[in-house]
Amino acid sequence: MTTTVDTDKTPASVPTAPTPSPEGTRAYDLDRAHVFHSWSAQGALNPMVIAGGRGSEVWDFDGNTYLDFSSQLVNTNMGHQHPAIIDAIKAQADILATVAPAAANLARGEAAQRIVAKADAHFGKVFFTNGGADAIENAIRMARITTGRDKILSTYRSYHGNTGAAIVATGDWRRMPNEFARGHAHFFGPFEYRSEFWSTSQEQECERALQHLERVIVSEGASTIAAILLETVPGTAGVLVPPPGYLPGVRALCDRYGILLILDEVMCGFGRTGQWFAWQGFDVVPDLVAFAKGVNSGYVPAGGVLISESIANEFETQVFPGGLTYSGHPLAMASIVGSIDAMDAEGVVENARTIGTDHLGPGLAELAEKHEMIGNVRGLGVFWALDLVDDRESRQAVSGGVILQLKKAMLARGLLPFSADNRIHVVPPCIVTPDQVAQALSIYDEAFTEVEANL
Amino acid sequence: MTTTVDTDKTPASVPTAPTPSPEGTRAYDLDRAHVFHSWSAQGALNPMVIAGGRGSEVWDFDGNTYLDFSSQLVNTNMGHQHPAIIDAIKAQADILATVAPAAANLARGEAAQRIVAKADAHFGKVFFTNGGADAIENAIRMARITTGRDKILSTYRSYHGNTGAAIVATGDWRRMPNEFARGHAHFFGPFEYRSEFWSTSQEQECERALQHLERVIVSEGASTIAAILLETVPGTAGVLVPPPGYLPGVRALCDRYGILLILDEVMCGFGRTGQWFAWQGFDVVPDLVAFAKGVNSGYVPAGGVLISESIANEFETQVFPGGLTYSGHPLAMASIVGSIDAMDAEGVVENARTIGTDHLGPGLAELAEKHEMIGNVRGLGVFWALDLVDDRESRQAVSGGVILQLKKAMLARGLLPFSADNRIHVVPPCIVTPDQVAQALSIYDEAFTEVEANL
Ligand SMILES: Cc1ncc(COP(=O)(O)O)c(C=O)c1O
Ligand SMILES: Cc1ncc(COP(=O)(O)O)c(C=O)c1O
Repeated sequence: MTTTVDTDKTPASVPTAPTPSPEGTRAYDLDRAHVFHSWSAQGALNPMVIAGGRGSEVWDFDGNTYLDFSSQLVNTNMGHQHPAIIDAIKAQADILATVAPAAANLARGEAAQRIVAKADAHFGKVFFTNGGADAIENAIRMARITTGRDKILSTYRSYHGNTGAAIVATGDWRRMPNEFARGHAHFFGPFEYRSEFWSTSQEQECERALQHLERVIVSEGASTIAAILLETVPGTAGVLVPPPGYLPGVRALCDRYGILLILDEVMCGFGRTGQWFAWQGFDVVPDLVAFAKGVNSGYVPAGGVLISESIANEFETQVFPGGLTYSGHPLAMASIVGSIDAMDAEGVVENARTIGTDHLGPGLAELAEKHEMIGNVRGLGVFWALDLVDDRESRQAVSGGVILQLKKAMLARGLLPFSADNRIHVVPPCIVTPDQVAQALSIYDEAFTEVEANL
Repeated sequence: MTTTVDTDKTPASVPTAPTPSPEGTRAYDLDRAHVFHSWSAQGALNPMVIAGGRGSEVWDFDGNTYLDFSSQLVNTNMGHQHPAIIDAIKAQADILATVAPAAANLARGEAAQRIVAKADAHFGKVFFTNGGADAIENAIRMARITTGRDKILSTYRSYHGNTGAAIVATGDWRRMPNEFARGHAHFFGPFEYRSEFWSTSQEQECERALQHLERVIVSEGASTIAAILLETVPGTAGVLVPPPGYLPGVRALCDRYGILLILDEVMCGFGRTGQWFAWQGFDVVPDLVAFAKGVNSGYVPAGGVLISESIANEFETQVFPGGLTYSGHPLAMASIVGSIDAMDAEGVVENARTIGTDHLGPGLAELAEKHEMIGNVRGLGVFWALDLVDDRESRQAVSGGVILQLKKAMLARGLLPFSADNRIHVVPPCIVTPDQVAQALSIYDEAFTEVEANL
């Protein structure tokens, strides 16, 4: 059984059972023969087969079950196979699966109304897309058209999706081979643990990050900037919870310079931070919001842009030059309605908040006390990262090999982890229970102990 | 009842019934309050409410039924609510709705294998996306990376989608407000009825279009061009069936200059032209193919890139820098498997071909003989356009007002039409019956008679 280099997106390679079932073998063989995988060299892949799941668990065809502390790509906020969402999909499938965007459709109106209801009063309309990247594309388009300016400012530590403008707005390595657009500039956001601003406190990090941003705005030319695009809490880059004053400070800069604020809530929205929208915990109101993932836990591909009344009004008489075949797809819309209603009925957002404050927060802090390797713990709700270091003084990131060992140790104990760079992201569904958190914490603990012993 | 300006994408505005049902009213009101529509000024919209459908028909909440000769956005190749696809979706919904792309999943492998099986032998793998635009994005990315060149050549008469690179590759008016990328150049394709090359026969149009393309290649610098991107049969631009020698000629130019050929089969693939893939009727084999719509009739958002073995091999050791959360989404994959298997079992591709040769082709030709306004009929399979003119000599396009009158006359007779610019596109599902075609032809006939009488 060879273990190969993983991409930074879990589910990871995993040793398969000694005598895999015929379905497991077929799933694996067809995948290797015909499926081209994202963000990877194809030759080295050894994908884990996932056959099914329920709640915070997934399983393969061979009887192995895993606690899903990845939420797949941090999207199954309601866990796997939530009956209310599955029923909503099946009911809509019996009525009408697909319809053109130009028609009105009841499921679409109901979905838009529910999303608007969860947001601040100044939001009025929703433009639906198939996922996060095309939500970003259309938010950027709206900002450019309403301001008449073309530049989009975003951070180096960000991920916004893989399509033309979204990938160029992205700040990580994935941007570079895709650098084919004009109209984008990048800056650094606050990140006290690995400060770009030589700061020594959170207050200083906040103040300096805002000063840096204003210098970039002025240097790029404020009148050329359509929007600042930020993940409210940058996710893939490491769950970089912003210091309290940062987002209000960005809003103030936007207002001073006539720039729109687009918040990317694709990963952090719909319960992940213990709020319906992450911005609601940070004393800021954006102009445009990109969402996807948690809006329906990804049961049907869907995303969208939440639009302020004033921006929506700009398109009352002016044509909006964007669209896609599956905008407001009935099956996707039904799953959004089913998911939001169930989140409401079951107090799922509150659960995510309590899990963060009472269970994951204290539990991960305790873990960090036991394991030298955990240099920094940060997060809120069900959205946490463990920043792993060779040495706490230098904060030198651990190597990919260490991450691979940790993932193997966790998988062997029945936990599906999420890793990115030198980090383990602790990102279970919002419906996770205190018992499952306790179970996961002890698996993490054992895995760190095992890997530390081997170093 | 005011009639407002339509966008060029049907379903159109339609007079609602005098006393609409409560659901119809709610669907309409929620839509107007909270749904932001594509390609439109929002203020002027008066969307038709679609409540349900089956086969080649759709209906509203008020008892009005329409023959769907739009296939929505030319995507319901299997018609509405095909039981085999609905059952496949519901069965998968009971197993596992969503999974991360990095995992292997049986439904995904089965879908990829079926798509590869319908293509020529040199295709090996499929990269799945959520729709057409992101398929184009990733095909462009693959072409740029494997060639090390950045320019993409596409035609002025084309539509490739609304995301960053796809919209800039597009050749119609929608490109202009989105012109924020570098690395794209446009040329003219063959279109005998409205020739850009002063040609007087199809042979001459073909020859001159190829000569023009070679001049553009040389003038842009052949060594800077990664790919030529073409809709095999340009759809939204007017069902521009290429003359027989054109695509083989493009292939030869690509080979001469080391350029890849990407065919966009988002609209024309999976039965629409009476072939599994449209290119199979034109004596050409592409390197990369973008697909969506007909692959599953849009029942779940899905698209993808079909990749030649040799391009897939380039990414055996090199990382492919693209991806998206819902790549290979299980629900979408199950609907693809259900749809392709049912198309096979029911001979749907053959039906589309026969409908074209024996029913729509002759029927529309007869219609053109009766109505002066029909300047040109072109198409194949279930993919036709009526090019409407004020006068056959000048070929001056009819005004938008005439199109609006025609649409109203068709809707009033129970047919949901598809219009674009000065054209009516005749694009029923591939499962349409000879009887339904006869019914539609007589509705078209009456509508033309009525509108001509008013001119
Ligand atoms: C913050 C953020 N924005 C955008 C995206 C892109 O979403 P999608 O993969 O659905 O295109 C992601 C995906 O991980 C994300 O985390
Ligand atoms: C030929 C072609 N390519 C690409 C697209 C874009 O597909 P989507 O709307 O699913 O993004 C379309 C949509 O109509 C199309 O007709």
